[in-house]
Amino acid sequence: MDTIVPGTNLPRIIIIGGGFGGINLAKSLHSIQAQIILLDKNNYHTFQPLLYQVATGGLEPDSIAFPLRKLFDRQGNIIFRHAEVTCLYPDEKFIETSIGALSYDYLIIATGTRTNYFSLPIEDKAMSMKTIPEALDVRSLILQNFERANYEQDVKVKSALMKFIIVGGGPTGVETAGALAELKRYVLPADYPELDMRQMEIQLIEAGGRLLGGMSEKASKTALSDLEKLGVHVSLNTYVTGYDGTKVTTNKGDVFEATTVIWSAGVSGNPVHGLPEALLLPSGRIRVNAFNQVEGFKEIFAVGDIAYMDSDPNYPHGHPQVAQVAIQMGKNVAHNIQYSLKGAPLRAFEYYDKGSMATIGRNKAVADVSKSHFKGFFAWLMWMLVQRLFLYGFRNRLVVLINWIWSYITYDKGARVIIRPFIRKKVAS
Amino acid sequence: MDTIVPGTNLPRIIIIGGGFGGINLAKSLHSIQAQIILLDKNNYHTFQPLLYQVATGGLEPDSIAFPLRKLFDRQGNIIFRHAEVTCLYPDEKFIETSIGALSYDYLIIATGTRTNYFSLPIEDKAMSMKTIPEALDVRSLILQNFERANYEQDVKVKSALMKFIIVGGGPTGVETAGALAELKRYVLPADYPELDMRQMEIQLIEAGGRLLGGMSEKASKTALSDLEKLGVHVSLNTYVTGYDGTKVTTNKGDVFEATTVIWSAGVSGNPVHGLPEALLLPSGRIRVNAFNQVEGFKEIFAVGDIAYMDSDPNYPHGHPQVAQVAIQMGKNVAHNIQYSLKGAPLRAFEYYDKGSMATIGRNKAVADVSKSHFKGFFAWLMWMLVQRLFLYGFRNRLVVLINWIWSYITYDKGARVIIRPFIRKKVAS
Repeated sequence: MDTIVPGTNLPRIIIIGGGFGGINLAKSLHSIQAQIILLDKNNYHTFQPLLYQVATGGLEPDSIAFPLRKLFDRQGNIIFRHAEVTCLYPDEKFIETSIGALSYDYLIIATGTRTNYFSLPIEDKAMSMKTIPEALDVRSLILQNFERANYEQDVKVKSALMKFIIVGGGPTGVETAGALAELKRYVLPADYPELDMRQMEIQLIEAGGRLLGGMSEKASKTALSDLEKLGVHVSLNTYVTGYDGTKVTTNKGDVFEATTVIWSAGVSGNPVHGLPEALLLPSGRIRVNAFNQVEGFKEIFAVGDIAYMDSDPNYPHGHPQVAQVAIQMGKNVAHNIQYSLKGAPLRAFEYYDKGSMATIGRNKAVADVSKSHFKGFFAWLMWMLVQRLFLYGFRNRLVVLINWIWSYITYDKGARVIIRPFIRKKVAS
Repeated sequence: MDTIVPGTNLPRIIIIGGGFGGINLAKSLHSIQAQIILLDKNNYHTFQPLLYQVATGGLEPDSIAFPLRKLFDRQGNIIFRHAEVTCLYPDEKFIETSIGALSYDYLIIATGTRTNYFSLPIEDKAMSMKTIPEALDVRSLILQNFERANYEQDVKVKSALMKFIIVGGGPTGVETAGALAELKRYVLPADYPELDMRQMEIQLIEAGGRLLGGMSEKASKTALSDLEKLGVHVSLNTYVTGYDGTKVTTNKGDVFEATTVIWSAGVSGNPVHGLPEALLLPSGRIRVNAFNQVEGFKEIFAVGDIAYMDSDPNYPHGHPQVAQVAIQMGKNVAHNIQYSLKGAPLRAFEYYDKGSMATIGRNKAVADVSKSHFKGFFAWLMWMLVQRLFLYGFRNRLVVLINWIWSYITYDKGARVIIRPFIRKKVAS
């Protein structure tokens, strides 16, 4: 064992996943005397809140992907391995990965979530938007649909090619619907002069009674009216009952014919194989105590979207699955590991809600900060600044800023290249 | 027929290929009364001279890809179709494409070239670098090799992972070797502190007696000494006799064990199926007369790398396969089509050689301009300016400039994200 990283006499801390939780945890351990191993199946961190901009041509993937090795270039106690974890052996304290086995003293599961289709058999038909390749795939499909609509003779097929169904009215669904509406208004007419863009339809379907269920009622109302002003059709209290690749059906009896269905209706945890089943919720999340320890294992922690903590009376059904929770949990676990190494008592996690925001379009956004609600241009400016603050790397921030200023002035979106998968010649292991 | 673009009473000009030849031809026809149809299997133009920078992490693909629709946004007489041509029927004057058939009055073949392995059975083992997906694939392989070298126990395998063979000492081979040497010196040591980067080897193999055979003797000498100073091993008068995925063998009896072989040793034309065989050279190029007309067909032209014109006494074996020739041929054919429509005599192509240049690394480049030769910092600055002049779009130029200034100041290269193909869910036709 341990051939993939030679052991030392220092305690070994393994972090599975380089998302918001994993990297903030690792950063907070910068001065600890330990061997920290960060594992991720990608060699980059994905800034998930902006994936929808990659999908709608506003940004290129490199602006929201940050190489993990570069992120930790100056942190000597971190070792990165580009690997996928295949199994956890909690009693023996080791993990199996795609490149070999590794023992640990502390293990942190920060594997996040994946798209949840709620047992509808549509995984091969609806588009998901949780990863960079998925977002690129959404973008390519949107553009390919218009390319084809140009010469499609069948009126029904043509209409389906120009119809976009977005399922789920959370931030991702709202932001995607808004971005598509702006593409329709400002960008696509110049690119596709042969098409009548009034035929393009954007339909947002939300199962709950309001959009942005995690935000204030005011935010929900603003988002709804902003989207409707942009020409988006919104169906509330509606859930999808099926999609056969051609027709979307709902509980309300709607039948929407659409070539593109973007699924942002829910997520389920990405648990690591090998954890006792009893610790997993049906949502795939892992039950943790107030210190983020996985029940029954003092040396295993879970943080971020995958962690389900119901000990906080303010959040009896767990915390919202957002970046801020992951970041704060990561930092708290970093402290707790340090306390644990010293034999000191651990510190319970307390979530400090910095507020939440979503953007609908140009000069249109909503923000809830403590008890206050903001909307319009000011909220939109706040959203831009906050997103940029959290992007890693000066170069990324600069490139994103240029792209945004560019789009703002020209009403254009630069990233309209269709890059579909390439059958590679060589499979490197 | 003609369902994919409705016919008009105007003459129809079909251009196959949105490379340098095709887009310059189309641009030069901006004021003609005709229906111009541009076809390409990609929806973007690829700035091929900078592909090597994508492969070596200096640039992201979007900086050198320009959406074709955007390029012609303001040119009303152009229609773009995202399609591949499957067959040409020259006697009936129509083409078959992946999306349907199209008749033409004038046809221009501007399909360029693909990698030529000279009948070595290595197409599935060596890496090619003619397209953006291929360049991304090279980059991913390079990075994946280092990821694996980190934990590889077998000394021979580890050494092969860190060995890079580049076959072909033309501009692409020289520029790639130089960029890899700079990665070795400035970037990789920080990213892979566990590896001894002195073990990384870069081997450039050239069949001819000198590098950059298309340039002056002085340029060849400078390129050789610059590369050697950067630590690249160069073998001249050497050609590859085989590669089994592990070992490269040469006519000199060398055996190089390497996981990565980048093939930039030659190209062959991408002819359109259906042209009489007699018009094709063994290299796949199409024989054209001094007006770029394909022999025997007044209404079919070929331009750029695919065209073989031996009527110019200065270029008895055809013109060099470089961007400048394609651009100038495209413009000349635009004139000739206009003359032909008026019944006026056509104008023979005359190539004006503006010079050629190649960059080896930071402050290191060579340039031949008429009888003068430049090298070092000045040539490198010229190279930067010229490349930028030819990039399409202000945003692309700006982003490339920022990336270059960034790399110059920080000695870093930003683009180190491994994006391997994604098995897509939905195949849009």
